Amino acid sequence: MNAEIIAVGTELLLGQIANTNAQFLSAQLAEIGVNIYHHTVVGDNPARLKKAIVQAEERANLIIFTGGLGPTKDDLTKETIAQHLGKQLIIDEIAMQTILDYFDKTGRVMTANNKKQALVIEGGNVLPNEHGMAPGMFINAGSTYFMLLPGPPHEMQPMFRNYGRPAIEAEMGATEKIESLVLRYFGIGEAELAEKLSDIIDEQTNPTVAPLAGDGEVTLRITARHRQGSVARSMIKEMEEKVNLLVGEYFYGYDETSLMRELLKTLEEKKLTIAAAESLTGGLFQSEMTAVVGVSTMLIGGVVCYSNQSKLTLCNVKEETINKYGVVSEQCAIELAENIRSMLGTDIGISFTGAAGPDSLEGNPAGTVWIGISFKNQQPKSYLLKLAGSRNGNRKRSVKYGCYYLLQELQQR
Amino acid sequence: MNAEIIAVGTELLLGQIANTNAQFLSAQLAEIGVNIYHHTVVGDNPARLKKAIVQAEERANLIIFTGGLGPTKDDLTKETIAQHLGKQLIIDEIAMQTILDYFDKTGRVMTANNKKQALVIEGGNVLPNEHGMAPGMFINAGSTYFMLLPGPPHEMQPMFRNYGRPAIEAEMGATEKIESLVLRYFGIGEAELAEKLSDIIDEQTNPTVAPLAGDGEVTLRITARHRQGSVARSMIKEMEEKVNLLVGEYFYGYDETSLMRELLKTLEEKKLTIAAAESLTGGLFQSEMTAVVGVSTMLIGGVVCYSNQSKLTLCNVKEETINKYGVVSEQCAIELAENIRSMLGTDIGISFTGAAGPDSLEGNPAGTVWIGISFKNQQPKSYLLKLAGSRNGNRKRSVKYGCYYLLQELQQR
Repeated sequence: MNAEIIAVGTELLLGQIANTNAQFLSAQLAEIGVNIYHHTVVGDNPARLKKAIVQAEERANLIIFTGGLGPTKDDLTKETIAQHLGKQLIIDEIAMQTILDYFDKTGRVMTANNKKQALVIEGGNVLPNEHGMAPGMFINAGSTYFMLLPGPPHEMQPMFRNYGRPAIEAEMGATEKIESLVLRYFGIGEAELAEKLSDIIDEQTNPTVAPLAGDGEVTLRITARHRQGSVARSMIKEMEEKVNLLVGEYFYGYDETSLMRELLKTLEEKKLTIAAAESLTGGLFQSEMTAVVGVSTMLIGGVVCYSNQSKLTLCNVKEETINKYGVVSEQCAIELAENIRSMLGTDIGISFTGAAGPDSLEGNPAGTVWIGISFKNQQPKSYLLKLAGSRNGNRKRSVKYGCYYLLQELQQR
Repeated sequence: MNAEIIAVGTELLLGQIANTNAQFLSAQLAEIGVNIYHHTVVGDNPARLKKAIVQAEERANLIIFTGGLGPTKDDLTKETIAQHLGKQLIIDEIAMQTILDYFDKTGRVMTANNKKQALVIEGGNVLPNEHGMAPGMFINAGSTYFMLLPGPPHEMQPMFRNYGRPAIEAEMGATEKIESLVLRYFGIGEAELAEKLSDIIDEQTNPTVAPLAGDGEVTLRITARHRQGSVARSMIKEMEEKVNLLVGEYFYGYDETSLMRELLKTLEEKKLTIAAAESLTGGLFQSEMTAVVGVSTMLIGGVVCYSNQSKLTLCNVKEETINKYGVVSEQCAIELAENIRSMLGTDIGISFTGAAGPDSLEGNPAGTVWIGISFKNQQPKSYLLKLAGSRNGNRKRSVKYGCYYLLQELQQR
């Protein structure tokens, strides 16, 4: 089945809201193997909506509409589609009862406009709205299916999940299960990853392999289709192994995780505590760590030693170290990491010092960053980064690299 | 001018991301009076993209494309448009230099794919990309203008603001000037603000007054149109005065500022230094401060005292204070603020301690937060917050309140 999503609403064309409905529906439809080749947005204008329907009919056999089912004069989606299909609008008694109950319960005055919401297209199936007044519809119009959904996401999403998606699956006589898995990579660019995997990506059919870049990381989505879910899952497993033979060194986690979450998971498993001394990152590492619930058994605390003075006062860095090597130095990073660890008596100390930008610092170009990692009773480690982003891009990437290097260290133990 | 936005990218059709680019561009174009009647999304497929172009040409005289300018084989937007227009792709030397510099600086391996990003359509104007490698383009093709922008929002948005929008305005030879001003408020909800301003909002024509809520703040955009920019600006000024007669007590700044930026501006003007002790905010206050360029003369540093132990070790809080009053207490907040100020010898010390959530702490419900503010040679101040958000919502709002209260203190001096 090939679908097209048509969102109706002038508020989308004015940029007041983003079309998150199309995103939600696309992800849902991808899961059941429905292809989508187009999203369209039109305003509350019957003539333009009609043209969009005609175009969509030429290229899709399932057209899903969101929005335009409300009570106002502007809401004309079902009226336009009914006219296009040569069908009548009739009152849906259940929807009408929902509307009457609402006004009865709230004591509000019902207007003629509100009754309009109970109208549905004759001959279609009604999709109940459990979170609002406008029912949805699913209509089999010969070669094309039409599905009408309300615009507000909190009404549309449960309606689609509970009634819309099952109705589509029933029509498809769904024989195939679709499974997918997201693999997450760090320390490799999108272009480099795509090149290393070019043979796999060029040959892909089932499973499919799709790279996606974002926020300094690269993700890969593997999707497989098969009558049996278990077979689809083992097809994915096989592809994962093939992929990670080539880029496994950059792999760090599955699906909705992050480097910070993986790090915290590992610290928790190994029952390790951590403290941090942050110069250029200014508290970002600890703040991102604190964002996760349950971190208090792992993160003891740390310092934000943004100025040279605070490196001396708060973290006992030797004045000699700063005079001799500067603050953008391996020596300073190591002293910070070792001192914060011993001050707080933790298993691990981590430090970040460098030039976030836009200016250079001590002759080091913006983006030069030293990360120090100290383990109890062991030689400290240090890592040099040469970043090329904005000030805040560099700060964020430094935190990601800190998580990544520490994760690698911990996994080797 | 009538515009259409075509987003290119299979990741949009798979529901991996929402089309926020169309939202951003629509809002920007609405500000300069360009009408938009359609948004379209197509995948990385030249045939379907070509059809979308032909359709858009029938109904718009400005077509803006986002996405498909990257280095991979899937990225085919400029190739498809060049072919459609019968034009060649040529190397843009500035873009090529940016790419060479990036690989030189980071020491990464450049692939043939990356060079493809420096290609532009002949005869067009290049829109510089200050945050990435793919340049944008603006092409006058007879009756239709084509604008090509990169997909990642952090590259696209500044490119459009700085180069794309001015290029469109120049072509429109705009006869009416459109001026707008954003007023920012904190400590008042959107509904309350809208109610206080209901007479003004109901009567609005020119200037228009539009409230918008987001991120715990409320903003108000005043937009005026007039042949003369100076007249439009004084119409805005007049409206601003009318509005702030009613809600001025919550007003804190204009346009793209933030509470943190206003605080830093005030600290700079008054030549004051600051240090922070953060428990539940975990470094977020200092991290947000460090995000701003030039903060090093003001922020000396501080501690992240997430655990009770670190409050004692790093910030010399008396054990007795914690035993007697707990860490979610006015006493603890004040000691933290006073101690961090005296440890670092700054003019101001600020502290955050409380229960971020989801669990309660020491019998205090999640969202109970104490903020302490210490000034040299003065009685310390403390503020109690009772927040009702998520863990991270509460952390972020605590930081905003810290900035807000400190700003108020400083403005009264």
